Amino acid sequence: MKPVITAFEESPDRGQGLARDMPVRWALEEVGQPYDVRLVSFRAMKEPAHRALHPFGQIPTYEEGDLALFESGSIVLHIGERRVGLLPENTNARARAITWMFAAVGTVEPPIVQREVSTYLERDKAWHDERLAVVEDRIRNRLNELAARLGDAEWLDGNFSAGDLLMVQVLRRLGGSGILDDYPNLSAYIARAQSRPAYKCAFADQLAVFTAASAG
Amino acid sequence: MKPVITAFEESPDRGQGLARDMPVRWALEEVGQPYDVRLVSFRAMKEPAHRALHPFGQIPTYEEGDLALFESGSIVLHIGERRVGLLPENTNARARAITWMFAAVGTVEPPIVQREVSTYLERDKAWHDERLAVVEDRIRNRLNELAARLGDAEWLDGNFSAGDLLMVQVLRRLGGSGILDDYPNLSAYIARAQSRPAYKCAFADQLAVFTAASAG
Repeated sequence: MKPVITAFEESPDRGQGLARDMPVRWALEEVGQPYDVRLVSFRAMKEPAHRALHPFGQIPTYEEGDLALFESGSIVLHIGERRVGLLPENTNARARAITWMFAAVGTVEPPIVQREVSTYLERDKAWHDERLAVVEDRIRNRLNELAARLGDAEWLDGNFSAGDLLMVQVLRRLGGSGILDDYPNLSAYIARAQSRPAYKCAFADQLAVFTAASAG
Repeated sequence: MKPVITAFEESPDRGQGLARDMPVRWALEEVGQPYDVRLVSFRAMKEPAHRALHPFGQIPTYEEGDLALFESGSIVLHIGERRVGLLPENTNARARAITWMFAAVGTVEPPIVQREVSTYLERDKAWHDERLAVVEDRIRNRLNELAARLGDAEWLDGNFSAGDLLMVQVLRRLGGSGILDDYPNLSAYIARAQSRPAYKCAFADQLAVFTAASAG
């Protein structure tokens, strides 16, 4: 039985692959698991039928037989636990890969998302520039620490894992900000991940949704 | 072999149990796993020896033989996977409990932490009140959705799980804000968790560190 995920009917980022279906698609491609996609509108996301699957009225959701999950990090972990390709077999290495998943979601992502929220919702405030500088300082602190840990390694801990997948997806949100220009090893890390066939396939599939919607 | 966790030598919250060793202590108590604590100073947290364990220079860390982990969510998950008491045995129920762990860390916590950061670091800005109102709106949106999902259930999905543990720990950060007064079912949910023997034991242990430091 193929799992079914949900994604935006109209991509808010015009197919840049920053919506949260992207890490789930990427994870499914990494493990070679075919899947179906159900597109939902912004309106439908907030209605009871979708909220039964996702209490916070967002995408993605993941349905597989009787199982329904939400939260992209949790879905990626579930996929990694069921199939080979995203988590090491060694128990300790697996726990460390999961640590990087939580670090991506809980430590690196929050100031990066704050920057986006600030840019979208506070752009017309008199204090926007001052606050943006504060948020960008917080982002740089995190990136300094992450870059120091990565060093010249290929991935965060041994082979590519679900931890790298989520971390790269978080870092990609900084594209266009110029901030990553100061971190050549993180930029190379992102590029390395983006050259993976599974990434490319997932990216093309989410872009095709946007392209079809624009043409329609 | 007893695992060793790290905690603040000097509790920044004066023993209120909001530091991130608290969920790890609580999880260890829920599964009945004895552990040791190594206290670290703010200065030592930023030095290479600690950063080797925690790249972001924070607490807690978790060491167990050859294994070293960081990120409280990941440590709680590791404990839940190794011992009985924090995750359901049924595979699907377990995946749903893990979904709530990620929801706590990735969806509910960020605006709550933003509110704290705003209160600490932006208090003297002319725009502080205006921005605080924006952040509190975001928090209320999340709480509305969480309260609607919880309804009059005891826990988020069946029995108490690591998902409830992390969610309660996140919600406790709102104590004193007055925001929770508008959510009687969430307040009762927090109180229910706080009445658990494992919670009480973990809370007392972290408070004892603060009390001893104050007396010393």
